[in-house]
Amino acid sequence: MEVMNKYISIKSHIDGVPEESDFELRTELLSVSLESGSNDVIVKNFYVSVDPYQINRMKKYSSSQEASSFAVAITPGQPIDAFGVGRVVASENPAFEKDDLVAGVTSWGDYSIVRGGNMLNKLDTMGFPLSYHLGPLAFSGLTAYGGFFEVCKPKKGEKVFVSSASGSVGNLVGQYAKLFGCYVVGCAGSQKKVELMKEKLGFDDAFNYKEETDLKSALKRYFPDGIDIYFDNVGAEMLEAAVANMNAFGRVAACGVISEYTDAGKRAAPSMLDVVYKRITIRGFLAADLMNVYADFISTTADHIRTGKLHVLEDISLGLESVPTAFIGLFRGDNVGKNMVKIADA
Amino acid sequence: MEVMNKYISIKSHIDGVPEESDFELRTELLSVSLESGSNDVIVKNFYVSVDPYQINRMKKYSSSQEASSFAVAITPGQPIDAFGVGRVVASENPAFEKDDLVAGVTSWGDYSIVRGGNMLNKLDTMGFPLSYHLGPLAFSGLTAYGGFFEVCKPKKGEKVFVSSASGSVGNLVGQYAKLFGCYVVGCAGSQKKVELMKEKLGFDDAFNYKEETDLKSALKRYFPDGIDIYFDNVGAEMLEAAVANMNAFGRVAACGVISEYTDAGKRAAPSMLDVVYKRITIRGFLAADLMNVYADFISTTADHIRTGKLHVLEDISLGLESVPTAFIGLFRGDNVGKNMVKIADA
Repeated sequence: MEVMNKYISIKSHIDGVPEESDFELRTELLSVSLESGSNDVIVKNFYVSVDPYQINRMKKYSSSQEASSFAVAITPGQPIDAFGVGRVVASENPAFEKDDLVAGVTSWGDYSIVRGGNMLNKLDTMGFPLSYHLGPLAFSGLTAYGGFFEVCKPKKGEKVFVSSASGSVGNLVGQYAKLFGCYVVGCAGSQKKVELMKEKLGFDDAFNYKEETDLKSALKRYFPDGIDIYFDNVGAEMLEAAVANMNAFGRVAACGVISEYTDAGKRAAPSMLDVVYKRITIRGFLAADLMNVYADFISTTADHIRTGKLHVLEDISLGLESVPTAFIGLFRGDNVGKNMVKIADA
Repeated sequence: MEVMNKYISIKSHIDGVPEESDFELRTELLSVSLESGSNDVIVKNFYVSVDPYQINRMKKYSSSQEASSFAVAITPGQPIDAFGVGRVVASENPAFEKDDLVAGVTSWGDYSIVRGGNMLNKLDTMGFPLSYHLGPLAFSGLTAYGGFFEVCKPKKGEKVFVSSASGSVGNLVGQYAKLFGCYVVGCAGSQKKVELMKEKLGFDDAFNYKEETDLKSALKRYFPDGIDIYFDNVGAEMLEAAVANMNAFGRVAACGVISEYTDAGKRAAPSMLDVVYKRITIRGFLAADLMNVYADFISTTADHIRTGKLHVLEDISLGLESVPTAFIGLFRGDNVGKNMVKIADA
């Protein structure tokens, strides 16, 4: 049996700001009969995640030998791996049966062949909407939870600054920090986002970085007693300004560098004198290294959502064709909350 | 009773590369009779330490309100605090008696008034020369030992890079790392220093950074399998190059930033993409925060020196008048090993 499958791919490597013309919608005839013993699984996608870090896998550099530490490179013309939620339509893997609801690494397509069933799991919705299993109950959530609690090691009452704070990870970091008992200020790139943070997410304060001419002074205003924890999603000038405003023994969780992803020449140059004298720790991390807190993360987060303490912020585009626009929008700051595309009804 | 005391001071704040003309030798009549109950102590200095970080305390910035995290500012015309070893000539402090041998914060002078006996300790030489108690058995040693073992958390066999590796701290870091079972490469600014590291200190390799046009490529040559630990004494381009060559879960101990101390515009801009993807930790530290390992540090280091496993590298200038030259020389890379000035015979 065969199905007509549509998927998004890149036409060639992308080394700057992504544009619609960098992407194409491809069509293939997909055989739904898998090789016996292959452990492969075919998934029909309902939702797929659209994340900024994927741009790094689209760069020419990512397929170079030097980039061994980067995630697997994306090959032009091929399907693009992405986190997704869907249903099994065929399985040669003993862990999955036809019609199982699954979450894991699928791809930007109607259907995904998941080789060996790698990084795919059966999904227990726990009564939550499917989309929650791409955001607060998936990697965005783990990144925020593990990044905040394990990497930042917060103490109650500490002053926390979050950049891209209305984004998929940032909004959760800010909410976790508030629930934990910290003072939280977020920044983002529009007044609408600032209001959302203050009114809906319960941040102590928030500001629009685009309206600030001097980020160092801005942070001094929002943190007259200094910053203890900076959850960094952007890098560049914001990291420099945060380090300049940091207290002794401050911690920076380096989660993302979105301002540098599309501009190879852009670099943060935090004062190393500050780093030494204020004994600052800057620590890069990936959610995949935080699986030790996964069980805690899921139970805590599910509880917070159920009791209404944690607000779920989603930005859902409709239809596979909207993936490139949703992706490009990330670098223009279009999204509010977890960015994803709904491919089909469950 | 009064003595004629000579001491070194700065004429005004120093904001660039220090020069002889920035310093002056001052003379004062010092009363050796202390106020009863003051807890003050007067020390006749035998050796005083001359360290790069002191330049930061001489900057105009250091006396500004913003610089609260910096060490206490040095005031023009006043004595300059420095670590020293000497003998008590007068004491109103119950912890010290006349003629006690002491080590701690004294000053660049023939005599030092140590107010309240703060940061002064009676010295047990353990049979070692007095000068050892300014270097490997004092803060340089603690910085190297604590910085390497506590901040870098090394594993045997890991690849360690040390900059300023023939300096007071760097040479000890490299030696501790070798004794612990790591692969160690150091860099310094002359061929003589390179030979010393390879032949006397037992480093696996060493190079002269002044002979390299591309530090990133140089480190790739010396670390074909990547760097696990970088003990950073210099900052700037070397930090960038080290981060670019770092392995996953690499650690940078940010100990000093000598290349930036005299050039406020100079900044390291390590790739934050590398920091995130390779989960690198950059951690600033000061020896004063590592007192928890002090007992271990002293016993281990004393043993290593006694058994000849740890080579003591000293650069001793003679006479109080030579302090400015010895200090200025630090920023030209003149010194090899622990830089100090012998003020008087014990």
